[in-house]
Amino acid sequence: MKILENKTISDVPGFKAVGIHSGVKKNGNNDLCVIYSEKPAVAAAVFTKNKVKAAPVLVSMEHIKSENIQAIVANSGNANACTGSKGFDNAVTMTNITAEALGLSAKEVMVASTGIIGFPMPIDKITSGIETACKQLSKIGGESAAKAIATTDTFTKKITVEITIEDKPIYISGIAKGSGMIHPNMGTMLSFITTNINISKSLLQFVLKSSIENTYNMVSVDGDTSTNDTVIVMANGQAENTFLYAMNGHYMQFKEALDFVNKELAKMIAKDGEGATKLIETDVIHAKTIADAKLCAKSVIGSSLVKSALFGSDANWGRILCAIGYADGNFMPEKVDISFKNDVGIIQVAKNGMGIPFDEPLAKSILEQEYVNILIDLKDGEHSATAWGCDLSYDYVKINGDYRS
Amino acid sequence: MKILENKTISDVPGFKAVGIHSGVKKNGNNDLCVIYSEKPAVAAAVFTKNKVKAAPVLVSMEHIKSENIQAIVANSGNANACTGSKGFDNAVTMTNITAEALGLSAKEVMVASTGIIGFPMPIDKITSGIETACKQLSKIGGESAAKAIATTDTFTKKITVEITIEDKPIYISGIAKGSGMIHPNMGTMLSFITTNINISKSLLQFVLKSSIENTYNMVSVDGDTSTNDTVIVMANGQAENTFLYAMNGHYMQFKEALDFVNKELAKMIAKDGEGATKLIETDVIHAKTIADAKLCAKSVIGSSLVKSALFGSDANWGRILCAIGYADGNFMPEKVDISFKNDVGIIQVAKNGMGIPFDEPLAKSILEQEYVNILIDLKDGEHSATAWGCDLSYDYVKINGDYRS
Repeated sequence: MKILENKTISDVPGFKAVGIHSGVKKNGNNDLCVIYSEKPAVAAAVFTKNKVKAAPVLVSMEHIKSENIQAIVANSGNANACTGSKGFDNAVTMTNITAEALGLSAKEVMVASTGIIGFPMPIDKITSGIETACKQLSKIGGESAAKAIATTDTFTKKITVEITIEDKPIYISGIAKGSGMIHPNMGTMLSFITTNINISKSLLQFVLKSSIENTYNMVSVDGDTSTNDTVIVMANGQAENTFLYAMNGHYMQFKEALDFVNKELAKMIAKDGEGATKLIETDVIHAKTIADAKLCAKSVIGSSLVKSALFGSDANWGRILCAIGYADGNFMPEKVDISFKNDVGIIQVAKNGMGIPFDEPLAKSILEQEYVNILIDLKDGEHSATAWGCDLSYDYVKINGDYRS
Repeated sequence: MKILENKTISDVPGFKAVGIHSGVKKNGNNDLCVIYSEKPAVAAAVFTKNKVKAAPVLVSMEHIKSENIQAIVANSGNANACTGSKGFDNAVTMTNITAEALGLSAKEVMVASTGIIGFPMPIDKITSGIETACKQLSKIGGESAAKAIATTDTFTKKITVEITIEDKPIYISGIAKGSGMIHPNMGTMLSFITTNINISKSLLQFVLKSSIENTYNMVSVDGDTSTNDTVIVMANGQAENTFLYAMNGHYMQFKEALDFVNKELAKMIAKDGEGATKLIETDVIHAKTIADAKLCAKSVIGSSLVKSALFGSDANWGRILCAIGYADGNFMPEKVDISFKNDVGIIQVAKNGMGIPFDEPLAKSILEQEYVNILIDLKDGEHSATAWGCDLSYDYVKINGDYRS
């Protein structure tokens, strides 16, 4: 597997994309994007588990049933959530206008939105924006599309990898939007992935679903789960590999690459959590079951006390042990070892559930880095899990305490 | 039921108390207290559900099995948690020294600690402190005892009520320690209650357990659950009412008063959450079941996004709807009404799951108060629940980002 540094979703053969400013965002930033496959494609998608689902989620949940999906239209600045039947109509209109401009049926278009909840969509701006965007679709538009789904994101999240199946290059490329409200079961998170693999719709859905369990669903920024989360993968088959419909070796190769793409995007989302100053990775190892490992890892990454301590570069391992203690996962408190590590070094701070003397200046210098790994060894089995999150800073409060931020 | 403004735990007939500075806290504040019943008493207790239980919790869980409990010894500044067998020995020593000084057996003494996790107890300071404290027990020592269990608390939490059963005055008086790490299932929370009622141990345990479900367990400051939470009620029978052992009318009268005491202490804990600027009360009404109402109320009070919005006095009802959406409780999104209210007024901001136009200056002035009630009408049944929490401020991050705070 190769990572292609300067490529993005529109570089995948057969795909075009574009991001423009339609007028929803007041600061003039891109706020609308279209991703388009020139030829019929299959798609798979996963949506928020929040009972309050935004209008575009409800519409896309219907459209994903179509055998062919050829376009995604997405906007930022307004989430079109809690907007009633008018909101639903507006989401349908977004797919209608896109379909008309691209010569598709509306059911072949997926729609997604992110931004403020509970305000009517400025649908006139959006519809004329879609018409403009569809005319500007290009092979170099992926970067502008990535910018168009950002809200409080501080950097563009994208990754592209290449694998080879039957001597044919297969590309998998994704863009994502993260920031606040990211939690297991997907916070306000959009992720759009294009690939040229030739795969069945049902296998694509299966591999996506299993992939998000260990990637996006292991990320927490603030414990909230949004109304709008959507991950979509479009596969246009242009690589012309032998049609992939079973879990053979080629499937495993594709799965590994898709997992990598999703994991990298998930880590970027965690790192760019609202107000975050560092990426926190929690590895729980030697758990009795995978479920135990996951529950413990997520609990640590979700603890406001742990997150505040890490903001202050404070080796407060007691809060970490406390956080796994109130998780639903099983473990034996008197067996737990805890270490912090990254490029600077590794330092063990707790052994068998108790503190041990450690080099405090070294701990501080490890914790002051932009990436910190918390290694929790439960010494109770053979399973492990990883979760990603960020610290809790003054800026998180500032960003989220502003009216209509 | 009467509220006795200036009374506290040592004013209840037959009880004495004291709080002193033993030397654990560096700032010279009280850090050790003893509460003592002159005559044999029954006691009930509830402890943290965290799997990582501090040494004093493990010791008190054993001691509560004794028929007679006559003293509580508690310290702040060091939690004696994650301290291994040495920590366990230290907690036992605390009960031994207290028992010796008061002529009791160690099993008749309950012990509790709060403070930093994972550091050895300065047991010499504690033991000589206990000896000093036991000599200073008095009828006016309740206030100093309340101060001795405080950590980052900004005010003393105490309440006393009086009811009359068979023409005899029954007093119920409590002190509590709250602040950070408070969550359903009791954050670092200590609550000690004295009463002169004549009641069976098993009925006292039953009424306490049912009372905490709707009081302390409905409070969230930051979602973390501590290793040390302990609620203890001691009843010395000196009111000489007919021995209460069944759920009759007198029981209901006592239950109502105990619920009130616990609810008021719970609200004080929420209001004094670390860095909090306001008390948030969430009423969920017309839910299908009590469980649905509780889950929805707790989810709102626990949402960092809702808490940040309230810090900024932002009527962001979308985040409230979103927070009940990811709760495990059932409801119909398209039926939900949301209002904010307090002394300033009441303002409805959402109807049938959608925003409605509202007077924004009025909303702002309601939300700027130190007490805000969020009223969520699910219009889906007959059950209701209330939860308490606080906003999320810069100061929360500051307090918890400092090393060894």
